Amino acid sequence: MKVLSKAQIVASLDLELAVQRLQEGFVAFSAGQVQVPPVQAFAFNQANGDCCVKSAFVEGSDTFTVKVSTGFYDNPAKGLASNDGLMMVLSATTGQPLALLQDEGWLTCIRTALAGRIAAHLLAPRQVNAIGIIGTGTQARMQLEQLRAVTACRKVIAWGRNEPGLAAFEAFAHGLGFQARTTRDAAEVAGMANLIVTTTPSREPLLQSHWVQPGTHITAVGADTAGKQELDPALVARADRIIVDSLVQCSQYGEISHALKAGLISLGQLAELGALLAGQAKGREDDQQITLADLTGVAVQDAQIANCALACMHS
Amino acid sequence: MKVLSKAQIVASLDLELAVQRLQEGFVAFSAGQVQVPPVQAFAFNQANGDCCVKSAFVEGSDTFTVKVSTGFYDNPAKGLASNDGLMMVLSATTGQPLALLQDEGWLTCIRTALAGRIAAHLLAPRQVNAIGIIGTGTQARMQLEQLRAVTACRKVIAWGRNEPGLAAFEAFAHGLGFQARTTRDAAEVAGMANLIVTTTPSREPLLQSHWVQPGTHITAVGADTAGKQELDPALVARADRIIVDSLVQCSQYGEISHALKAGLISLGQLAELGALLAGQAKGREDDQQITLADLTGVAVQDAQIANCALACMHS
Repeated sequence: MKVLSKAQIVASLDLELAVQRLQEGFVAFSAGQVQVPPVQAFAFNQANGDCCVKSAFVEGSDTFTVKVSTGFYDNPAKGLASNDGLMMVLSATTGQPLALLQDEGWLTCIRTALAGRIAAHLLAPRQVNAIGIIGTGTQARMQLEQLRAVTACRKVIAWGRNEPGLAAFEAFAHGLGFQARTTRDAAEVAGMANLIVTTTPSREPLLQSHWVQPGTHITAVGADTAGKQELDPALVARADRIIVDSLVQCSQYGEISHALKAGLISLGQLAELGALLAGQAKGREDDQQITLADLTGVAVQDAQIANCALACMHS
Repeated sequence: MKVLSKAQIVASLDLELAVQRLQEGFVAFSAGQVQVPPVQAFAFNQANGDCCVKSAFVEGSDTFTVKVSTGFYDNPAKGLASNDGLMMVLSATTGQPLALLQDEGWLTCIRTALAGRIAAHLLAPRQVNAIGIIGTGTQARMQLEQLRAVTACRKVIAWGRNEPGLAAFEAFAHGLGFQARTTRDAAEVAGMANLIVTTTPSREPLLQSHWVQPGTHITAVGADTAGKQELDPALVARADRIIVDSLVQCSQYGEISHALKAGLISLGQLAELGALLAGQAKGREDDQQITLADLTGVAVQDAQIANCALACMHS
């Protein structure tokens, strides 16, 4: 069995191939061709930590994947990262373990950012005036980085809660070639940007409906467990198109779950990203529509990115 | 992160320490002090294979474990073992991966055999006339090997379906210092032995009630998924004491589930091994009672044996 380090994985992953594999994964998932057993979750209350185990097998694939992700929120005080994780890739024809990807959670971050890129590619307005990013953390940066492949726009405005975080994000964005601006007022983001990505673990709406301009596309990636919320439910209700990565997950705990439970939208309005990719759902129809992509993260992404990472090591 | 091979694990595991850790694990499990998320199961129909992911955390432990087990039944034709597997041990205080135990399923085999030893130690009659083993495979051998610590009896009679398997088992038992006999008639086993272990993947009863002598203890380890069965339900109904490793698992798909569903026994008659170990349930009371231990295998055993294997590498 191969044991690959984060450095090896980062150095060799072909992002264009990864996008292709993720798209294929979303299509297979929406077509019911992926085995996704229930997530295993642990709570380590004394250590302020949690862990989840996500596994997936895409029918017809030569491998399947078991991912272990941990979050221990007192780690920074010990000089350790809060998040860690690894993926195991096993043969779907013999069961043999093929590789252990010690990615320290990086593959989860990049597959999430690439899903944002895929959604923006399908749904962003033709003319992007500015990119808006809600949040300044790792995922905020990776989303911005990946959006460069989707639009020629190199203007970004980022919202954050504190100045040091904003300053660091601004420096990062400059490094990527962006003209960057930061703010502590999310209304400013909505006023400037018509391609917005929300990336925070917020538990209350940060983006109000009446701030958002017609024609805007919003990708929400923060809400990945119960209780998280970044968008005003009225904004969700106002969206002309709502695309979700998983109908089951998003209706349970995704960004759109709040509007769904409040009766502001109905299940019939939702379509999966895989269906949109397969041409079985409608995307943006004009430059005045508001579109929304709600991404909770599905295990098929892990299976596809892990298989891709392994293929990149071999090639 | 340490990566340990099967050879390293087998060479260093302290079986006495393992027994102690498993006992502590069963007690914690029955006391509700173990987090055991739902098992993740895959079916690989085209490859005639399956996989399950079992994870457990014993509250208060410094580690937790994720185990991946595979069974690919066309592997022998390819020169590979049918079963493979590995365990990951992670820190319960920081989430960091500590060790990958590439035990190829051996730790699962030994923890199952040691559970049989623990059950026999608690429930076997004082005077063992002969040990009876139903089955001749790996688990049959490991159970016999471990029972040497429980009884001074060195007589064994084994049942199997074919002569080559029986001959190989007989040679193995001789090597362990047993006076061994083999048969294709399970009634002979019940007639000679009063400490019997059933170890097959049978889907129909192999051991009939009227063959079994008063005073016999039976440990059944074969029934670990729905549909498997080794004992006549009338024998289960006849048992004076029934001990199970997990009330939930055994009542769903364990050996005793058939008698339970047929209304021959009731849930109130069952007690968990952890409760027996903690002195909260009754065991054997005299040499005429028939006792039965139904072991389906619980994830807490994996967590305990993995932690123990890791401790043995360090010491």
